[in-house]
Amino acid sequence: MRQEGTIAAIATPPGHGGVGIIRISGPDSHAILGRLFLPASPRFAGFRPRTLHRGRACDATGAPLDDVLAVAMPGPRTFTGEDVAEIHCHGGPAVLAAVLDAACARGAQLAGRGEFTRRAFLNGRMDLTQAEAVAEMIAAPAQGGLRLAQARLQGLLGARVAELRACLLDLRAQVCVAVDFPEDEVDCLAPEAFVAECDAVAAGVRGLLSAHQRGRCWQEGALVVLAGHVNAGKSSLMNALLGRRRAIVTDMPGTTRDFIEEPVQLAGLPVRLVDTAGLRDTGDIVEQEGVRISRDLVAQADLVLLVVDAAAGLGHAERELLRHVRDQHASAAQPARPAPSPQSAQSAQSVVPAGRVLVVLNKTDLAGGDGGAAAFQCPQEVEGCPCVGVSALRGLGVDELAVAARAMVLAGLGGAGSGGEPESGDIAPNLRQAQVLRRALDELDALMADVRAGVPYDLCSVRLDGACAVLSEITGETTPAEVLEHIFSSFCIGK
Amino acid sequence: MRQEGTIAAIATPPGHGGVGIIRISGPDSHAILGRLFLPASPRFAGFRPRTLHRGRACDATGAPLDDVLAVAMPGPRTFTGEDVAEIHCHGGPAVLAAVLDAACARGAQLAGRGEFTRRAFLNGRMDLTQAEAVAEMIAAPAQGGLRLAQARLQGLLGARVAELRACLLDLRAQVCVAVDFPEDEVDCLAPEAFVAECDAVAAGVRGLLSAHQRGRCWQEGALVVLAGHVNAGKSSLMNALLGRRRAIVTDMPGTTRDFIEEPVQLAGLPVRLVDTAGLRDTGDIVEQEGVRISRDLVAQADLVLLVVDAAAGLGHAERELLRHVRDQHASAAQPARPAPSPQSAQSAQSVVPAGRVLVVLNKTDLAGGDGGAAAFQCPQEVEGCPCVGVSALRGLGVDELAVAARAMVLAGLGGAGSGGEPESGDIAPNLRQAQVLRRALDELDALMADVRAGVPYDLCSVRLDGACAVLSEITGETTPAEVLEHIFSSFCIGK
Repeated sequence: MRQEGTIAAIATPPGHGGVGIIRISGPDSHAILGRLFLPASPRFAGFRPRTLHRGRACDATGAPLDDVLAVAMPGPRTFTGEDVAEIHCHGGPAVLAAVLDAACARGAQLAGRGEFTRRAFLNGRMDLTQAEAVAEMIAAPAQGGLRLAQARLQGLLGARVAELRACLLDLRAQVCVAVDFPEDEVDCLAPEAFVAECDAVAAGVRGLLSAHQRGRCWQEGALVVLAGHVNAGKSSLMNALLGRRRAIVTDMPGTTRDFIEEPVQLAGLPVRLVDTAGLRDTGDIVEQEGVRISRDLVAQADLVLLVVDAAAGLGHAERELLRHVRDQHASAAQPARPAPSPQSAQSAQSVVPAGRVLVVLNKTDLAGGDGGAAAFQCPQEVEGCPCVGVSALRGLGVDELAVAARAMVLAGLGGAGSGGEPESGDIAPNLRQAQVLRRALDELDALMADVRAGVPYDLCSVRLDGACAVLSEITGETTPAEVLEHIFSSFCIGK
Repeated sequence: MRQEGTIAAIATPPGHGGVGIIRISGPDSHAILGRLFLPASPRFAGFRPRTLHRGRACDATGAPLDDVLAVAMPGPRTFTGEDVAEIHCHGGPAVLAAVLDAACARGAQLAGRGEFTRRAFLNGRMDLTQAEAVAEMIAAPAQGGLRLAQARLQGLLGARVAELRACLLDLRAQVCVAVDFPEDEVDCLAPEAFVAECDAVAAGVRGLLSAHQRGRCWQEGALVVLAGHVNAGKSSLMNALLGRRRAIVTDMPGTTRDFIEEPVQLAGLPVRLVDTAGLRDTGDIVEQEGVRISRDLVAQADLVLLVVDAAAGLGHAERELLRHVRDQHASAAQPARPAPSPQSAQSAQSVVPAGRVLVVLNKTDLAGGDGGAAAFQCPQEVEGCPCVGVSALRGLGVDELAVAARAMVLAGLGGAGSGGEPESGDIAPNLRQAQVLRRALDELDALMADVRAGVPYDLCSVRLDGACAVLSEITGETTPAEVLEHIFSSFCIGK
C-alpha cells in the first residue's frame, strides 16, 4: 500500500491572497524543483536543506511565471516522510495553476485528496489519530474544538489508547501462563482478578467515550431543536437567537415546514440550531412530513427548547412531546450514542428528561397583561423541566435563555463539574474513534461475562486478542483499507 | 512616510487548505517569533536565517496552538526590506486566527491592506510598477494577463520608462548649455533637433499607450456588447456564447431591460460580454432607460455584435446604431482612451466602423426556408461591416462567431500583426500608468509646439522638467501620497 511517485498540489486555501504554496512530495521532488526554479542569486550553489531561496519559477519553455521562494526539505524528517519541495508564489489562482502545471510538466502527478497526509501516515510520521487531527485542525469551528484537535495532533489520544492496550497485552501474558502451564498454580490468575483488570480497562474506554460526547459539541456543535405547538413563536425565537431574520415569520400557523438548521454560538457554545414544523394534527401532507421529521430531530437533540405560548400554557401536544422525549431517553438503544455512563444511568429514573428539555414560555409581554413582560411571573419549572420566559419578538430574556441552554447542554454531556471549555491537553476521540471504542467495550463486556461464566482461559484469550485488535484500529495499526480510504478521501486536495 | 512598528497578518487566501501562513514584518518580528515558537528539536540553537524550523506555536499562556514550521528572514534582503518572520500553520481559519492573535499578544499590530507591499516600495525593494504588479499577479484572470503582470513585476516597464526619462534628461542638459552659454553657438541645439528628440520620446510613450490598449483586454477582458432590435435574439446569443442559460429568453419583445454582464472567453480571449435592451422607440420608462444605457455601452465597446434577424434584415434602428458608432469613433475626444495611433487615424475615414461592429445575422435556420440554416446565404459584409450567420437557439455558427469576434477585438486594439496572446517580456502599462503616460504625452506635445513657435529655451526647459516629473510618477519617485494611498488600499490584507 506504500505510495510511489512524486505528487504536487496547491497546499494553501483556494482564492486570492498574498502568498500561495505549491507542495511537491516524493523521490523526484527536488529534481523537479531544480528544473523549474531559476535562482536570483548568482552565488546560488544548490538548495541548502530547509532554506528558502529567492528566484523565479519558470514554465517548460523557460519563460518566467512568478517571483518565488523555493525550499527543498530532505526526507525522512518532513511532513510526508519523503523528500518535499515547496514553491511560495503570489497567492492568485491563475499564477498557482500555472506553477502547478509547470511542476506537472516537469514530472509531478497531481495529488489526490489527503494524499500528503496519507503518505505521512503510511511512512510512520504520525498515527491515524494524528492524521485525522490534521483535517480536524483545518475544519475546527472555534477555539474549544481547536484545543481538542491539537491534543490529538500531539498524539495524546494515541498514547492513551496504547496505555489501555498495554494493560490488555499484560493480561494476555498472564493468561498465557495459565493456559501453557495449567499444572502450576502459582501464577494462575483468579477469575475475579481477571475481571477486575478488564473492568479497569473498560472504565478507561468509557472515560474516553464520555469525553467524546463532551468534545463532540465543541467540534461539530451541539444539536439544539426548537419544538412546540404551531404558532408558539419558534421561528421568531430562532431569529432572536441568530440575531438576524432567517426563518420566515407570519401569524399563519404552520408557516415553517422544512426544518431550518443554522450554526450559532449560545453563550460561546457552538450549536446547530434547528427550527422545526409545529406540532399539530394536520391534513396537509407536506406539513405531516415536516412534523414527522420534527419528532426525529427531537429524539436526536442534545437539548430541546419547547416553545410554549405563555398565555396558553402547555397543551396536549406539548405533554405528548415531553412523554416522547422521556421514552426516548429511557430506552438505551440509541445506536449512534454511547451506553449511558453509570452516573447518568443512575439518574435516568428521575431527572433525565428535565436535562434534555428547556421549556421556553414565549410572548411574556402579552401574557403579562397591562404590565407587559415585567408583570409576567415565570415559574421555576414546568412538568419537572426548567423554564425561562422570553419575548422573542422584543428580544427580552433571550440572552438568559442562551446561558441556561449552554449550561444544560454541557451538564447533559458531561455531568457536573465538566461544564467548561476544553483545555489544552484534554483528550476527546472523534466519531470514528468513539465507534471503535464502543466495539472494544462490547468485546470487553463479553469477555468479562465469559470469565464470570467459567469459560476456559484459552477461549477467553481469543476475545482478549480481539479487544486488542479493535483498539489498534484507533491508531491505525490494524485499520481496514476501506476505512483508511474513507478517512483520507474526506480531506481537501493539498493536505 | 516610513512605516514604524511590527505588523502581522494572515498571508494566504482565506478559507480551508493544507497550509496557511502568518507573516510578521518589522524590527520586532524575530523577537515575537521567538516568544511564540517552541522548537521541536532539543538541539535548536536559535533561528538560522531563511531556514524552516519545526516546532509548535503557543498562545500567551504557553499552551500549544498548532504544529508549525517557522522561519526568520533578516532584512534588508526580504520582501519588505525589513526583518520578516513566517509561521506556516495548518490552513484552517480558527487556527490561523489563534496564531495571529498570539503574535499580536506578543507585540505585533494587525497589518492594513497592502501594508507589506507598501513597506517594500517605501524601503526601495521595488518601484511602484512592481508593487502594482504584485496585486495584478494575484488578480490575473488568465494566462495572458499573468504574463503582462510578470513582466511588470520583473521591472521591465520601470526600466523602459527610465530609458525615456533619460532621453529627456539628456535633452535638458543640452538645453542648459544653450541657456547658460547663449553666446557660444557651438553646442546650441537647433529647434528642429529639439523637436525631433522630443518626438522620439513621444513615439515611445505612444508605443506604451497602444500596448496598454492591447494588454487591457488580457487583464480586464475586452468589452463586447450585444446590440440590435428588440426580439432579434440577443439574449439567446448571450446564452449560446456563455454555454449556459443566463439571460431570460422569451418571445416577448423587450424582455431584457437591465443590462447583463458576464465574463467569458471567446476563443481564449477574456471578454466582458454585455447583453443590452433592444433598440426601439418605447413608452415604457424602464425600457427607455435601458435603451439609453445600451447606447452608452455601445459607445464604450471594444466590439459591438449587432444582432439582426436574418429574415428581416437591417432596419432603421440598426442603421442609426451603425451611424452612431461611426460618429463615436470619428470624434477623437474619448477621455479614457489614448489618442489614435497614426495608423488607425489614417484608416479612420473608411473602414473604422467595420472594425468595431460585427453584424450577426441570427435565426439563419428560419431564414433559410425549407433548407434550414444550410440553405441560408450569408453575405460577406453588410453596410461595410463584416458579417456572420448563426442560429443562436440551435448553436449553429457560434464558434465561428467567437473566432471572428476575437480577431476583430485584437485587430482593433493593436493593428495588424499583434493579434496574438501576450508573450513573456511584453510590456503593457496598467490603467493608472497609461493615464500618467497620457499626461506626459500632453506635456511633450505642448513642448514641441512651444519650440516650433520659438518660445525661448529657458521657458521650454520648465515644460521639459514637467514631462520628466510626470514620467517619474509611473515608477513612484514623485507619485502624490493620495495616489499611493489609493493604490495600496486596493490590495488585500496580508500582501
